[in-house]
Amino acid sequence: MNQQPTQMEKIIIVDWGTTSLRATLADTSGRIIAEIENGKGIQFIKDNVFEPELVAAIDPWLEEHGTLSVVALGMITSKNGWVEVPYVACPATPKDLAKGVIHRKLSNGSNLYFLSGITDKTRAPFPDVMRGEETQILGFGLANASTVVLPGTHSKWSTVSAGHIQGFQTFVTGEIFALMSQHSFIAKAAGVDTPAKNFDTFERGAKVARDCEGTDTSFLTQLFSVRTGMLAGQLAAGDMISYLSGLLIGSEFRQAKDGGLFKSGDTIGIVGNDGLNARYHRVADIFDLTVRNGGEQAAVVGAIEIYKELVANVA
Amino acid sequence: MNQQPTQMEKIIIVDWGTTSLRATLADTSGRIIAEIENGKGIQFIKDNVFEPELVAAIDPWLEEHGTLSVVALGMITSKNGWVEVPYVACPATPKDLAKGVIHRKLSNGSNLYFLSGITDKTRAPFPDVMRGEETQILGFGLANASTVVLPGTHSKWSTVSAGHIQGFQTFVTGEIFALMSQHSFIAKAAGVDTPAKNFDTFERGAKVARDCEGTDTSFLTQLFSVRTGMLAGQLAAGDMISYLSGLLIGSEFRQAKDGGLFKSGDTIGIVGNDGLNARYHRVADIFDLTVRNGGEQAAVVGAIEIYKELVANVA
Repeated sequence: MNQQPTQMEKIIIVDWGTTSLRATLADTSGRIIAEIENGKGIQFIKDNVFEPELVAAIDPWLEEHGTLSVVALGMITSKNGWVEVPYVACPATPKDLAKGVIHRKLSNGSNLYFLSGITDKTRAPFPDVMRGEETQILGFGLANASTVVLPGTHSKWSTVSAGHIQGFQTFVTGEIFALMSQHSFIAKAAGVDTPAKNFDTFERGAKVARDCEGTDTSFLTQLFSVRTGMLAGQLAAGDMISYLSGLLIGSEFRQAKDGGLFKSGDTIGIVGNDGLNARYHRVADIFDLTVRNGGEQAAVVGAIEIYKELVANVA
Repeated sequence: MNQQPTQMEKIIIVDWGTTSLRATLADTSGRIIAEIENGKGIQFIKDNVFEPELVAAIDPWLEEHGTLSVVALGMITSKNGWVEVPYVACPATPKDLAKGVIHRKLSNGSNLYFLSGITDKTRAPFPDVMRGEETQILGFGLANASTVVLPGTHSKWSTVSAGHIQGFQTFVTGEIFALMSQHSFIAKAAGVDTPAKNFDTFERGAKVARDCEGTDTSFLTQLFSVRTGMLAGQLAAGDMISYLSGLLIGSEFRQAKDGGLFKSGDTIGIVGNDGLNARYHRVADIFDLTVRNGGEQAAVVGAIEIYKELVANVA
């Protein structure tokens, strides 16, 4: 911590979540040098032996380059992770996020920085929270006013403007999809491993969520349409999961729209790398939105930005 | 089928669902003489051997009284049941329901009547359906205009007036509760077998669903409050399931209200015997509703009414 970062300084960014560990070797200009990803998510780490798992993953880079700063984000910074980092409150700037960082050292002397998550205390009935997505939002960029969507098990819709993450809202869409497709009446009829690969049917589901009116807008009622469509002979058993996927993501957009997060004709950002972005793009089209893509490396770009703030502050 | 029913004619009503078989010996005045219930739901009947299971359940009554008419309703009349009975369309009178009945004979000569379910073809995107609940609605009574709620895995909200079941709408509330409490992020934090027995917390959840405004009305967002409440230290792990139960039933009422199914100050009916009625009563109170209770035996009362129509028609 006794040097200004240069274009050429190399750092390691570790996005360590519940189910996987993803590490990137980059330089502070944002150039990606190498990446590794494995299934050592924090839920699989016994007895809190996080450091050996981390070192095993990044050791070749430390061998080659000596001590490197390591920036860690995601659920590794939660109560169930390595070091619990308190949430930074919205509205938040990159400088605010840098102030929330907790600093440790690896036994080889490398600096280890745990990034904070953020909280939106204006949400009712309880403050909303995220850990890791805020770094992707930063990587997307905060300069222009925009709504930014991060698809996932717990999707995040965030509003950004004037250099701040202004606030955000979570939708548990992916969780409901997993539960309904694996354990519900739909799973029994469709077969648990039926893929959601029929994109015509996917879009049909999304349009149902968009177009319903009056009493048929009830979400708890719409979910039953996966069954009634099958009973009416209008939805093949093998298409139920595709329809469900479209219905759920379409419902997320409809609820977001009803809540004022966008209107027809807007441009929104979609950020993330969890394999859902193509589906969210299709539904954004259906809701008459233009999409600005945040790119695969938004977390790395955001982490580098916070790291630069950090080093600038302590220099 | 060659005699008019008398006050003293005895019949057997079999409410045979997915998970249980419930048989009632009654006379056509509605007097209950005996009841049995077992876990031989249709999902557990192998190779379609329904008749031996039925006879095993009701044999003591046949032994004592000889051939008796048997009225069967519920999922036993579905594609996965004994005899698939087509749905009768709403608006439907008891006479319409009688016309939909399929007649068979047991090998001992007893008449066996399979009641139809009903369908509401006005629902979008697909016609809604029920099997068994329509008989309970009949038992509740169709004379006075009312909304009638049948709590369950797939709750039904029906409108009745002038001797007709006018229409209905399904809410998959109980299904979502089971999935979330057994398999989701909530299950992991709360412990799968945590009971929903804290009624203060239950009511707190229902009030969140009732009172939210603006963007916080999003159902997919509200579900996340079970987690954020715990993270904020405002919801004990052991209370999460109670809160979830209130939040979900409260959301059902809110969505029903938003859809025009009731307004504050109305009287609604609550019918059923699945153990949820007390919870629905509490939430009805919270939404400023007066409840008319349909009674435990609504299915029996309704089945007798259809049986009387049947016998009157063929006499």
